[in-house]
Amino acid sequence: MRASVERIVADLTPRITGLRHLLHRNPEPSNQEFRTTEILAETLSKFGLDPRVRATGTGLLVDIGEPRIGFRADIDALPIDEPEGNDPRSGNPGWMHACGHDAHAAVAAGIAIGLSRLEGDGGYRIFFQPAEEAIVGGAVDLVAEGVVDGLEAVMAFHVDPTLDPGHIGVRHGPITAAADGFTVVLEGPGGHTSRPHRTVDLIAAAGKVITDLPPVIRSAFDARQPVVTAFGAVHGGEAPNVIPTRVELRGTIRSLHPEVRAALPELVKRTVARIAEAHGAVHTVTYRQGVPPVVNDPAVADAFARATREALGDGTVVPVETSMGGEDFAYYLDRVPGAMFRLGVRCGGGDIHSAGFKLDDAAVPVGVTAGIAAMAALARG
Amino acid sequence: MRASVERIVADLTPRITGLRHLLHRNPEPSNQEFRTTEILAETLSKFGLDPRVRATGTGLLVDIGEPRIGFRADIDALPIDEPEGNDPRSGNPGWMHACGHDAHAAVAAGIAIGLSRLEGDGGYRIFFQPAEEAIVGGAVDLVAEGVVDGLEAVMAFHVDPTLDPGHIGVRHGPITAAADGFTVVLEGPGGHTSRPHRTVDLIAAAGKVITDLPPVIRSAFDARQPVVTAFGAVHGGEAPNVIPTRVELRGTIRSLHPEVRAALPELVKRTVARIAEAHGAVHTVTYRQGVPPVVNDPAVADAFARATREALGDGTVVPVETSMGGEDFAYYLDRVPGAMFRLGVRCGGGDIHSAGFKLDDAAVPVGVTAGIAAMAALARG
Repeated sequence: MRASVERIVADLTPRITGLRHLLHRNPEPSNQEFRTTEILAETLSKFGLDPRVRATGTGLLVDIGEPRIGFRADIDALPIDEPEGNDPRSGNPGWMHACGHDAHAAVAAGIAIGLSRLEGDGGYRIFFQPAEEAIVGGAVDLVAEGVVDGLEAVMAFHVDPTLDPGHIGVRHGPITAAADGFTVVLEGPGGHTSRPHRTVDLIAAAGKVITDLPPVIRSAFDARQPVVTAFGAVHGGEAPNVIPTRVELRGTIRSLHPEVRAALPELVKRTVARIAEAHGAVHTVTYRQGVPPVVNDPAVADAFARATREALGDGTVVPVETSMGGEDFAYYLDRVPGAMFRLGVRCGGGDIHSAGFKLDDAAVPVGVTAGIAAMAALARG
Repeated sequence: MRASVERIVADLTPRITGLRHLLHRNPEPSNQEFRTTEILAETLSKFGLDPRVRATGTGLLVDIGEPRIGFRADIDALPIDEPEGNDPRSGNPGWMHACGHDAHAAVAAGIAIGLSRLEGDGGYRIFFQPAEEAIVGGAVDLVAEGVVDGLEAVMAFHVDPTLDPGHIGVRHGPITAAADGFTVVLEGPGGHTSRPHRTVDLIAAAGKVITDLPPVIRSAFDARQPVVTAFGAVHGGEAPNVIPTRVELRGTIRSLHPEVRAALPELVKRTVARIAEAHGAVHTVTYRQGVPPVVNDPAVADAFARATREALGDGTVVPVETSMGGEDFAYYLDRVPGAMFRLGVRCGGGDIHSAGFKLDDAAVPVGVTAGIAAMAALARG
């Protein structure tokens, strides 16, 4: 079995690495992964599989036998400009696979092809989900479409730049946080920067929201409960001497405890309202409940760890901490037991979601091997 | 004389009002006032004058006789969207004559045409300056081109929405402030909003600059010295869950006292540097010395006030305070004695530089009358 998986993966690695590079050159926004979907469907078809593209043209699934064990990859990219000199490099300016979804998708394709070549009567479903980065994430749609209905277990990888290639991180219980999103819009009459007292100094009000909201949220909870509030975008105004009429802020809040999470929307709205009122600004707060935590099933995690150790060696599997990142993989786990694993990809040192993120190609066959071995082991029961 | 000016202005008012409306429908950015310049040149030519357009295609001047007394109008618009329902309304989305330069230009055209019809041997230069809203303002170019060389006095209006139409504000000494501009760029590696500790929380750093810079500047000077620091623009990031790599802030600082003004660049740079360093952000500060204060010559101001009272009645002329606004008219006053006056235009209540600004058409003939009368009086000596 081990020899067979090794041979299959060795044979596939050049093609799967090339596929990862091709996907990397074609990063697409959430729910617009049309070319990505085509590339994946073409590749799977070439290898004799029968992929089914979703009616939206974004995302696809492929079944091998009667599906009992599922594997999920996510396929969207992030609005980040990829630095010059990267190879492969994004061909869509302003967009970058800075979260490793290109690797997730390529590894998943490798697992599908590999499982189709493996002897045994396990049945599998490999599915490629759009819009993992969006709130609400694409997993909600796929769950509604029944993608995990009837499955006994589901698993997924997420790349981890803090682990070396060759290492895979495993954890029982929560491995990602609840991630909620919010947008704050502040509005005022606008005016001349020489006379802020005659209008609403709208950027001053926005500055207060930026500086006050995170500590107000932090201090509302026991210090041992992680809560992370951070802004991703702020936009308002154009000329240096015109006070704008609108400033928009976008951010996320991560938490682990259900009670902390439940208190957040009201706390954000109340805090923004007080700041806005103090400045005389009109405000609207849109709070979006994002994903719940991903809570790994211990039995699935253990089966995965055993199969991975067997296929790749004892030193491969390492324990990992809960991340404050969010993952809509959580929605599948409401329906089916499963687990998410960390795929070591350290290369260059940049964090995921940053332009400095780089992925070591050596991680790809490791993920394919572990995935094939674990899926087959789970199917054997 | 009074009767003659009255007759001339009554005859011109419908055309000059129409000209103001036409200019209002065609607002253009600083140094791109091509259509505005064409409209003004065509109008002046139709009335038998001989306007000279600048080599840039933006701005023009017209001489009546051998020029001794000058009048300056500014012609650029602001990057503001004009609200629906305004009539006249901007036909260039995103741009609006929200500072009344359409009225300045139309009044100046009226003054030129009126003076050409007035008996007497005074010589006049009426000039239409681009880019008053820019830093550095267009006045610097016009001074270099010699537009005020040889003149004995120069004057200008600025609309004032705090005065009713029919009132004209006069002041000895400073009537506008020194207005300097600055741009702050903060840069960092970017990252994921779940892990701000692994990167630079760049919007947090920008928020600190917004909230801390104005009070630090304010508290560096005697409370009786006016200093106004305000931001007009802040831009950074896109996705709610991606910490951006760059945030840009743009603002202005207004001051009256030369010593206060001289201390500002170093104070801004030091304060931004400390905030940026505390957050680990890379920073650049571009500080642009803008206009000095406009300091009205008492003799020109008095001659204007006398002529205006004679032409329009005793109640017309009112005293006004120094504005914290800046005006590149100041550069002409380095060369030639002169004064700027406030033209009452109150209508609707919006401040200048805001989308709520509206101008009462009744102000236009008042400005034309006062301008013709004062220019003629100054020419008589």
